[in-house]
Amino acid sequence: MHKDFIDTNEFTKQELLDIIDLSLAIKRAIHHGYYPPLMENMTLGMIFQQSSTRTRVSFETAMSQMGGHAQYLGPGMIQLGGHETIGDTGKVLSKLVDIVMARVIDHQTVVDLAKSCTIPVINGMSDYNHPTQEIGDLCTIVEHLPQGKKLEDCKVVFVGDGTQVCASTGFITTKLGMHFVHYGPKGHQLNEHHKQIMEANCRISGGTWEVTDDRDAVRGADFIYTDVWYGLYENEMPKEERVRVFHDFQVNRELMQLGNLGCKFLHCLPATRGEDVTDEVADSDASLCWEEAGNRLTAMRGLLVYFTRYRPCHSELEIAAAQEALDCFLAERLGY
Amino acid sequence: MHKDFIDTNEFTKQELLDIIDLSLAIKRAIHHGYYPPLMENMTLGMIFQQSSTRTRVSFETAMSQMGGHAQYLGPGMIQLGGHETIGDTGKVLSKLVDIVMARVIDHQTVVDLAKSCTIPVINGMSDYNHPTQEIGDLCTIVEHLPQGKKLEDCKVVFVGDGTQVCASTGFITTKLGMHFVHYGPKGHQLNEHHKQIMEANCRISGGTWEVTDDRDAVRGADFIYTDVWYGLYENEMPKEERVRVFHDFQVNRELMQLGNLGCKFLHCLPATRGEDVTDEVADSDASLCWEEAGNRLTAMRGLLVYFTRYRPCHSELEIAAAQEALDCFLAERLGY
Amino acid sequence: MHKDFIDTNEFTKQELLDIIDLSLAIKRAIHHGYYPPLMENMTLGMIFQQSSTRTRVSFETAMSQMGGHAQYLGPGMIQLGGHETIGDTGKVLSKLVDIVMARVIDHQTVVDLAKSCTIPVINGMSDYNHPTQEIGDLCTIVEHLPQGKKLEDCKVVFVGDGTQVCASTGFITTKLGMHFVHYGPKGHQLNEHHKQIMEANCRISGGTWEVTDDRDAVRGADFIYTDVWYGLYENEMPKEERVRVFHDFQVNRELMQLGNLGCKFLHCLPATRGEDVTDEVADSDASLCWEEAGNRLTAMRGLLVYFTRYRPCHSELEIAAAQEALDCFLAERLGY
Repeated sequence: MHKDFIDTNEFTKQELLDIIDLSLAIKRAIHHGYYPPLMENMTLGMIFQQSSTRTRVSFETAMSQMGGHAQYLGPGMIQLGGHETIGDTGKVLSKLVDIVMARVIDHQTVVDLAKSCTIPVINGMSDYNHPTQEIGDLCTIVEHLPQGKKLEDCKVVFVGDGTQVCASTGFITTKLGMHFVHYGPKGHQLNEHHKQIMEANCRISGGTWEVTDDRDAVRGADFIYTDVWYGLYENEMPKEERVRVFHDFQVNRELMQLGNLGCKFLHCLPATRGEDVTDEVADSDASLCWEEAGNRLTAMRGLLVYFTRYRPCHSELEIAAAQEALDCFLAERLGY
Repeated sequence: MHKDFIDTNEFTKQELLDIIDLSLAIKRAIHHGYYPPLMENMTLGMIFQQSSTRTRVSFETAMSQMGGHAQYLGPGMIQLGGHETIGDTGKVLSKLVDIVMARVIDHQTVVDLAKSCTIPVINGMSDYNHPTQEIGDLCTIVEHLPQGKKLEDCKVVFVGDGTQVCASTGFITTKLGMHFVHYGPKGHQLNEHHKQIMEANCRISGGTWEVTDDRDAVRGADFIYTDVWYGLYENEMPKEERVRVFHDFQVNRELMQLGNLGCKFLHCLPATRGEDVTDEVADSDASLCWEEAGNRLTAMRGLLVYFTRYRPCHSELEIAAAQEALDCFLAERLGY
Repeated sequence: MHKDFIDTNEFTKQELLDIIDLSLAIKRAIHHGYYPPLMENMTLGMIFQQSSTRTRVSFETAMSQMGGHAQYLGPGMIQLGGHETIGDTGKVLSKLVDIVMARVIDHQTVVDLAKSCTIPVINGMSDYNHPTQEIGDLCTIVEHLPQGKKLEDCKVVFVGDGTQVCASTGFITTKLGMHFVHYGPKGHQLNEHHKQIMEANCRISGGTWEVTDDRDAVRGADFIYTDVWYGLYENEMPKEERVRVFHDFQVNRELMQLGNLGCKFLHCLPATRGEDVTDEVADSDASLCWEEAGNRLTAMRGLLVYFTRYRPCHSELEIAAAQEALDCFLAERLGY
């Protein structure tokens, strides 16, 4: 059993399906007006080393909707890695909150944080992977399976730069027995490390993977996914250079038409319209990218509940006795 | 019916009175210890392109007091207008929160945001107007009507720079049939666009308006209102220059004495004491500016309730069924 | 009766013991699963002029766990001391939140804020003292009293720089009748002002104090406490200089062995491992510094409850009437 959610490759297919189905079950409940108080009295510490729209807002909304509270610990707000080692911050946070999420610049930071924390830690994206995005994306795919197909029948083509989102999509699709293609230019493709993981996943799951710059590999796609071309925020590729490198990898009408009839478009967002995707595709009926953004919230709710499910439980009797003891103290000692 | 609260000129007199009276009704309830859970399970996204004390704190407190939660999305915290277009951020936020407020530098930003959002958007001040301030100010005026007068009998004189707060005061007073004067130096007076709106408002409401640098226009004021002299934060006027331009327009004992007996002082704050207002006036019994600040909270509660009143409703039966379905899933699939 | 918590020297020994015991009583209740809703409907405004991990996170968690909400007003987020005087910000916040805490650079700022606020103000650390740390530290000491000893029997030795945490430890230990030593190098010792306060405290409490650079003074310590060597964040001492000044004052195995058998280690954190404390000590069984960090939360809960205990109370009848009046308004005027 894993305390932390750092990398989906540490989980079995069944565990990941449990998280996905839990996420969708909570979504249905809320859709019908029931907000489950599953995070009651709990606090999430949200560490951000970068700005973030979707990850931050969806975690904070998820906590509120389920009766808990999320604290935004943005860049420079706490002393992580400044006056204090990551290990010490982890030990302290473990005393002050119930669960932590961290969006980090360097993957090792969230790994170290998880090691030092005695409470669950969720990876809210690093330079290596984006596992909460994986869960949200799979929720979106499950909700939009092509007619008559199971997950294991679906082909997902990731187009363009081999970003951490690309790697993450490769990880979870191969883990779940799906068919994954990264169609991107040489020099920006998933690397040997990624390939070894996908190969290992497929050997167990029966999925397939391919990394190529051959446009033909897009044919038969059920889902076409892309991400921005500029790379990591810390070291963005200038516009002229990235357009030169990636211009054949824009998701536009022509590329979408290589996919199956009814092929859907995915994007983790933000998009650079006119670069990685045309307005026509992003705003079309084939585009799931707004629902996908909404399913970030779906995923966060499921993950928060899943990773706090083993916290200590108290009987009603114990709680009532604790209340009585405190009420007594307040009345007798302080005259409340 | 308006989804958004961008400009009070888009509303009828009756609609604005409804919002004001709703705000005051909730204030009374809380004063007597009843915190209505009217924002339960709801999240407000608060976008700030500038720092803010009153608007930010009052929105956040309003949500908490009514059972909801507000997220602070400050300058640089999300990717609005940076890596992402306003339109795309609006579409995404519509999936992740229930209502949005935005304090923007350029009015067009909040207009565009409202267009792209499918959820309500509240303008938390732009370079053009400050409609939440208008509602709070009217709450203050209603609570302090001069003996025997109705709203329509009151004269409000705004002194000094024709700021967005000045324009806003002109808008709502003329909409409600009151008598508005902007007493300010040439070059810093409300412009033709403002005058046309006030004229249109008065033709329907029976109010009057005047824009002048004639000190005599202050006579008979029931409320004297002022704002800072330095203009927009992005482009502040140096101290020496603004004192030269505005020194005849300081609200001091002499100016207050031009108003009616019992004339009250208003200020949206922050004040630059010794410039736009003297300590003597700001701290006098005639000063309502602290209550006015408190009524920012009054207004936010009313606005939040008013603009979320049409959200989908669920029957108790539907909610109970949703709870049972989720509890079943948790027990059978995950063994909770 | 004190409205604010600025300096523990303004309180009696009994009042401080009440706060400590209240903090520990709430901690026990929560440990057994009862989260007392003692801050229900209340909002804490948290003003930070510096970044902070422990103070910020523990205040925010404390409010959430007891049914309230904390607003983070970080550096540059509000207009305190910028466009607005401290006095005016205080008056405004008093209308918009229920209680305020402030971590300030200059002690006078929190004193002025408390003067202008009509609601309670808690000092979350200044350049002069750190009273919430004092309460948390005493909670930790009470939980780890040496076998057979009372508080009044304990010797606490603060080693190294005479920081505001050192001063604070001197204040509360002498107030409570304990035995306090500051063992630090000349030029970095507690000053005459501190000594006068400790002397006055001891005259009432029967405690003792000593400020010295004689290593023998460490002998017999029940608790050895230290802090960083670099001083205030605004004006840090360079590494080379501070190591030269303080290298004899590192808390290491040798120094710990001067204390009593079972002597415990305290640190307010963050620690600069290898400077003010060795890894061996910080991570040993003698180290209470992680529990001490957890007791920041313990202290915040107690302080929040203690300083809001006199807010106005409403009868159930009054609340029910307020609810009925609001429901009537909503139904009749707005058709809800």
